[in-house]
Amino acid sequence: MKIIITGGAGFLGQRLAAALLQDNTTLPFDELVLADIQQPNAPIADPRVRCLALDLTQPSAAEQLIDSDCGVLFHLAAIVSSHAESDFDLGMQVNFDATRQLLEAARRNAPAMKFIFTSSLAVFGGQLPATVTDDCAVKPQSSYGAQKALCELLINDYARKGFVDARVLRLPTISVRPGKPNKAASSFASGIIREPLHGEPSVCPVSPELALWLSSPGTVVSNFIHAATLPAAQFGTSRIVNLPGISVTVQQMLAALGEVAGEQACARVSFVPDEAINRIVASWPGNFDVQRALALGFRVDENFQQVIRAFMHDEMPQVGS
Amino acid sequence: MKIIITGGAGFLGQRLAAALLQDNTTLPFDELVLADIQQPNAPIADPRVRCLALDLTQPSAAEQLIDSDCGVLFHLAAIVSSHAESDFDLGMQVNFDATRQLLEAARRNAPAMKFIFTSSLAVFGGQLPATVTDDCAVKPQSSYGAQKALCELLINDYARKGFVDARVLRLPTISVRPGKPNKAASSFASGIIREPLHGEPSVCPVSPELALWLSSPGTVVSNFIHAATLPAAQFGTSRIVNLPGISVTVQQMLAALGEVAGEQACARVSFVPDEAINRIVASWPGNFDVQRALALGFRVDENFQQVIRAFMHDEMPQVGS
Repeated sequence: MKIIITGGAGFLGQRLAAALLQDNTTLPFDELVLADIQQPNAPIADPRVRCLALDLTQPSAAEQLIDSDCGVLFHLAAIVSSHAESDFDLGMQVNFDATRQLLEAARRNAPAMKFIFTSSLAVFGGQLPATVTDDCAVKPQSSYGAQKALCELLINDYARKGFVDARVLRLPTISVRPGKPNKAASSFASGIIREPLHGEPSVCPVSPELALWLSSPGTVVSNFIHAATLPAAQFGTSRIVNLPGISVTVQQMLAALGEVAGEQACARVSFVPDEAINRIVASWPGNFDVQRALALGFRVDENFQQVIRAFMHDEMPQVGS
Repeated sequence: MKIIITGGAGFLGQRLAAALLQDNTTLPFDELVLADIQQPNAPIADPRVRCLALDLTQPSAAEQLIDSDCGVLFHLAAIVSSHAESDFDLGMQVNFDATRQLLEAARRNAPAMKFIFTSSLAVFGGQLPATVTDDCAVKPQSSYGAQKALCELLINDYARKGFVDARVLRLPTISVRPGKPNKAASSFASGIIREPLHGEPSVCPVSPELALWLSSPGTVVSNFIHAATLPAAQFGTSRIVNLPGISVTVQQMLAALGEVAGEQACARVSFVPDEAINRIVASWPGNFDVQRALALGFRVDENFQQVIRAFMHDEMPQVGS
């Protein structure tokens, strides 16, 4: 059995690959294909890993990737939110058209394959209730959110018709990501923790009162793998799951940073409002009712202090913890 | 100024064209283009009408249709519900891909053009509240509904970005349609009235208790035209409108038929359950909260008796009324 990860060079793709390689029991496989626009590296040296440079917007890419031996596809590749907003056409090609090609290839070559799609809380927007439920209308206020919502609808219909065995995970904002800031509108949600921990300044473009819906990378990766092990019947009539997260304001994030790393870390964050980023991020929900996800066995972080400690443990081994 | 109607050979396209040709004040125009896969006829002889045989799934079709002189596009062309369910790929091509091509052509050639898209109550499905509101999640249980929902999302994002000036109308089930039964799952909703009025038998495939959300063709056509006259700002952050309708059970429809045309008309209807049709139609909502649509000035039928009388007046002039 083969497992494929698109966006395999990305941070979550690498974390997921490492988790799959280290766990031989949950999802046993013979081959792990990491595909990305630039050739990924294996996160761990392992003869089962194959790394592939592949542009998913090319007509033959999906066919090349998915054959009858594929057991699970984790489709993580995407143009992130601010980038999809500034380059609408590229966003449509990568976020929607490439996903559609993968669905078609799965339908033709591997209809029993588990097709795990990463959607986002960015599908929501506009007037929202304080707590978003599964019955809440999707009104994206960004092209990234619209493109993810397009994929959700298409995937649910492919699943309903038995063309693919798909599962759609709406990801919370991931914090704390390691590495550099990226073009996601939510990039600051990691930056305001990561940079101060590294002794560097960070600028927060949104209000301290803004509530974010967050998940640590470790929890999300374990939820990816869990999604691939659930029987299809447990999803009922919708393959879409609002993944669990924790609702935390920017202020509370910084208070947690202070608790874990001291006041001098918090002092490295300054507030410089950016209307474009604020408009996108403030349109996302800050809280969800995730009873269904928890009943399906998806995990949630304990609190944001733990999330920061997990980041320090995983990404700053020199600090100890 | 030019007005285009796709699906111009269809029943609603013809009714809309006739209404536009007879009304010189609401939407004045120099040219009315009726496009359809088969060459349409002009409903009324008028030098302003141009009839065009055009396959919208062809790559150049949208470009051919929309130029800078276009003021309004009424995009009615679609593969209907049961047909889109049995031929998924054709449904995607016509209902989604062709709409996307029209959006792209509008974006390039006529961004100020009013793009009126006919969506459907079929975007809803699954567990629904007794009364559907604007905040109710879209969970289509048919490929037709999924394809219409895909278009809605895409159109709203094109409108948000200023690429097109779009308006999306979610149509109730239209009753009473003249002519022959078609491949719409809701075809019976006209058949059980039309056939008895013509002295012919009709088979109802759903339960008498099923509530339908209905609009007469005349009311829908006047709402099409109204949608093209509203200022964009009145729509707020969503261009999607649940059009007003009346909530009527099959039983109430037949009671109205009895009132208007006598008991012998009702006796021509027999009930033969069809699970495939029932599954699709029963997944649609039977009632909506349409405060927003009414506030925007959209019209609603008085009651189903009036709807039947309007059909007899429009389509059975020999009977008188």
